[in-house]
Amino acid sequence: MLISKIIELIKKGGSNYVSSNIIKDINIKNASSIELAKEKDITFLEENNILKDSLLSTNASVIIISDNPELVKLTRDKLISTIVVKNARIAFAEVLENLYKNNIYETGIHKTSNIHESCLIGNNCFIGANVNIGQNTKIGNNNQILPGVVILGNVQIGNNNIIHSNCVIHENTTIKNNCVINANTVIGSEGFGFIPESGKWIKMPQKGGVIVNDSVEIGTNSCIDRPSVGHTIIGEGTKIDNLVQIGHGVKIGRNCAFAAQVGIAGGAIIGDGVILAGQVGVNNRVKVGDNVIASSKCGIHCDVESGEIISGFPAMKNKSWLRSSAIFKKLPEFVKKLRELEK
Amino acid sequence: MLISKIIELIKKGGSNYVSSNIIKDINIKNASSIELAKEKDITFLEENNILKDSLLSTNASVIIISDNPELVKLTRDKLISTIVVKNARIAFAEVLENLYKNNIYETGIHKTSNIHESCLIGNNCFIGANVNIGQNTKIGNNNQILPGVVILGNVQIGNNNIIHSNCVIHENTTIKNNCVINANTVIGSEGFGFIPESGKWIKMPQKGGVIVNDSVEIGTNSCIDRPSVGHTIIGEGTKIDNLVQIGHGVKIGRNCAFAAQVGIAGGAIIGDGVILAGQVGVNNRVKVGDNVIASSKCGIHCDVESGEIISGFPAMKNKSWLRSSAIFKKLPEFVKKLRELEK
Amino acid sequence: MLISKIIELIKKGGSNYVSSNIIKDINIKNASSIELAKEKDITFLEENNILKDSLLSTNASVIIISDNPELVKLTRDKLISTIVVKNARIAFAEVLENLYKNNIYETGIHKTSNIHESCLIGNNCFIGANVNIGQNTKIGNNNQILPGVVILGNVQIGNNNIIHSNCVIHENTTIKNNCVINANTVIGSEGFGFIPESGKWIKMPQKGGVIVNDSVEIGTNSCIDRPSVGHTIIGEGTKIDNLVQIGHGVKIGRNCAFAAQVGIAGGAIIGDGVILAGQVGVNNRVKVGDNVIASSKCGIHCDVESGEIISGFPAMKNKSWLRSSAIFKKLPEFVKKLRELEK
Repeated sequence: MLISKIIELIKKGGSNYVSSNIIKDINIKNASSIELAKEKDITFLEENNILKDSLLSTNASVIIISDNPELVKLTRDKLISTIVVKNARIAFAEVLENLYKNNIYETGIHKTSNIHESCLIGNNCFIGANVNIGQNTKIGNNNQILPGVVILGNVQIGNNNIIHSNCVIHENTTIKNNCVINANTVIGSEGFGFIPESGKWIKMPQKGGVIVNDSVEIGTNSCIDRPSVGHTIIGEGTKIDNLVQIGHGVKIGRNCAFAAQVGIAGGAIIGDGVILAGQVGVNNRVKVGDNVIASSKCGIHCDVESGEIISGFPAMKNKSWLRSSAIFKKLPEFVKKLRELEK
Repeated sequence: MLISKIIELIKKGGSNYVSSNIIKDINIKNASSIELAKEKDITFLEENNILKDSLLSTNASVIIISDNPELVKLTRDKLISTIVVKNARIAFAEVLENLYKNNIYETGIHKTSNIHESCLIGNNCFIGANVNIGQNTKIGNNNQILPGVVILGNVQIGNNNIIHSNCVIHENTTIKNNCVINANTVIGSEGFGFIPESGKWIKMPQKGGVIVNDSVEIGTNSCIDRPSVGHTIIGEGTKIDNLVQIGHGVKIGRNCAFAAQVGIAGGAIIGDGVILAGQVGVNNRVKVGDNVIASSKCGIHCDVESGEIISGFPAMKNKSWLRSSAIFKKLPEFVKKLRELEK
Repeated sequence: MLISKIIELIKKGGSNYVSSNIIKDINIKNASSIELAKEKDITFLEENNILKDSLLSTNASVIIISDNPELVKLTRDKLISTIVVKNARIAFAEVLENLYKNNIYETGIHKTSNIHESCLIGNNCFIGANVNIGQNTKIGNNNQILPGVVILGNVQIGNNNIIHSNCVIHENTTIKNNCVINANTVIGSEGFGFIPESGKWIKMPQKGGVIVNDSVEIGTNSCIDRPSVGHTIIGEGTKIDNLVQIGHGVKIGRNCAFAAQVGIAGGAIIGDGVILAGQVGVNNRVKVGDNVIASSKCGIHCDVESGEIISGFPAMKNKSWLRSSAIFKKLPEFVKKLRELEK
């Protein structure tokens, strides 16, 4: 892709193009990180990035930078083709998408798939080898369902979704539009509902469903359970990483981001724009307000107000946790002082 | 299902029927939670439930309540058909099971399954599409083995089990009767056994097996490893949630309940009736006594006596942990006081 | 296998044979742990093992022991056939491997597998039922690819690898030689890369790949993500347990061992010989030096120097953490003293 073509692409995109300088309009073959880039590669650099020093030594032929005077000056001295934008990361994302067109999946229904006669499949779908689709399932247009996926009965899938290999989508699941479900993830499995009775566990049947709204992405080996009645709901635009557990009846708002190994217990209610870092846990029935940020390994055992930044277990305000954690390290010292005072 | 039929059902069940009051014997279509219930729905309410206020506004046509004077009075004032029992949750479970009969799985062996000629399959089983069963495996009666399941050789499966889609059951696994194994779970994979030698890891072959006793249920994407010799054992009636790790050679007692993302390291021995909340970890070779309860994220690094309630990491008595955690939050305050005293 | 044959085998192996004493050269049928061993079984015992007392009561016919005077004396008194070596565990591993030859997998390509015509498959491979292999994938010699595995396009697999059932290997993955990938693990799935923009998340396309070097073993239900550009790399000889998350662009050194439920966030760099116990978390872009040991549930939020032993969250030196944790338990007591002093 010629550098001039890349600039045209970026001008049409969402990164807010500022200016550019082509040293030589060559054909760009690859995108790379700044320290590994070779000739004919494109790379990018944001202000305040720790790799700034790599700018002097990079072999990239063209660089996207954010609109920062220092970066602009550095690139000018280096004599490298440069594209200046407000948001370099977004411009780089757009270039990546166009430089590596994904042409692995075709359309069509593989002859080894097993699709119940009562199913409706839309136009322009790819249904891979050994895919199984149960009765009364309805699948819209432009869906890619990769090999080995099992979709049980009574599932509704909208348009433009990708369901990666060996996922299992259970009964009474709705997946709306533009979603990505990564490999080996299970949606709509039965919630963990058991009633203690005379030292044994009686099963609460899990007859509800799961609703995955538009533009949700879910990582690999994750689990979204269905409740006994009603629905587990994932809000529009929410992104979920690998190995995440979403318990039965959980309601998640819009545009949240949950990192790997997060676990949300049954009945919890999560607001919009909530960010949970890796290995965070949320207790059952807890309510987490909008735009809450929880740092890694945080254990959220009771309700959290909107906008809070929390850490630790039990969860507390991040600033408070940082102070208490710093003292925790020095506890032996303080105990020594206390003992001296006692004398 | 007519309300009068539901009452008959509950009288025969395990919830201890007390009394009922039918306003109008209509046909109930759905079960719902109390705040979302519509006309022709059945719902339930236990005493001390935070949704008690929803009782006044619910649109449900019939409600199961526990035998509590306040709830009985509230329902009488509301003019809603009411069924009073000792254990409302159990009655609701029984209604759910009957209202939504699961008729998605048929019996029969799908033509795309691959079953080794040396296998024995009992009566009345469903073997789904693309199921693979290796040599010398024996499967009893009334089992449902869903699409994409892989069962390697030398596996013994009793009666009345459900093995959900894309599970993998390795060599030398025994699954007894009335078990549910949820989707994408792996049973009998090789334990993580390596011997350090001159800076490298030498593999300890894992030639043992796994025994899953009667009425065990295991969630999605969970792992039960086999040991080098002997067996990993899951006791009768134990329930295990999603994304749980059971290491090689672990012995688990009866009627335990482990929530999502629990990890139990190799060789640990867990008693009967043990409850481990989400993200709890148990170190290798640790012994946990009967009826121990560990709260979420607890790290059990050494033996625990029967009946203890434990929390935190390293695990300590729950009461002690609550007190220490409350002080942890206020450590900066105490350090300030200490400094003032020093002056 | 005759005891005399076992001794020959051990002499040729890596355990450093010292001596042996055959009471009767019988045919050994099984290997067992010392407390469960029956007649005609072989077992082993290392010095300082807590099962030492079982030596007096074991029914095993032959025992491998480490070269320790006390153990040698105990076995002589017991009149049991004995094999003395420097490393009993390694000798036992060698016996296990030979006593239970795994002959479940044959060679050959199953008729139900779907292999793109552009693929190259080496000699002496087993490709199981319902395996799917996409375009331009190259597979070397002596590989065992078990039923239900999905390998997308442009994957390179060397020689002597085992890929267990229902794994998914994505585009641009390289698996070198002598690796074991356990069931339901996903390698090369897209990294969790999203750019915040006006309250929504814009996707950073993940166009890089994953390189799994020689002799790596990965457990069940684990996830190795690919980055936007460049590679996620697992170093030679590294062993990874079940339910482990390796984020996009992570670089892992050689001969590491990561226990179950470890999570390593994107861009982290892990040295050689690093041991991470169960449920450890590593923050994104953190650098962990060679031979670091992190105890279970440790949260590594910033760089760690080579050779450190760390614990807790935030991670600190293990010795310091043990002291602070001991005081944490007694905080109420210290606060009481502080209050008394104030009076």
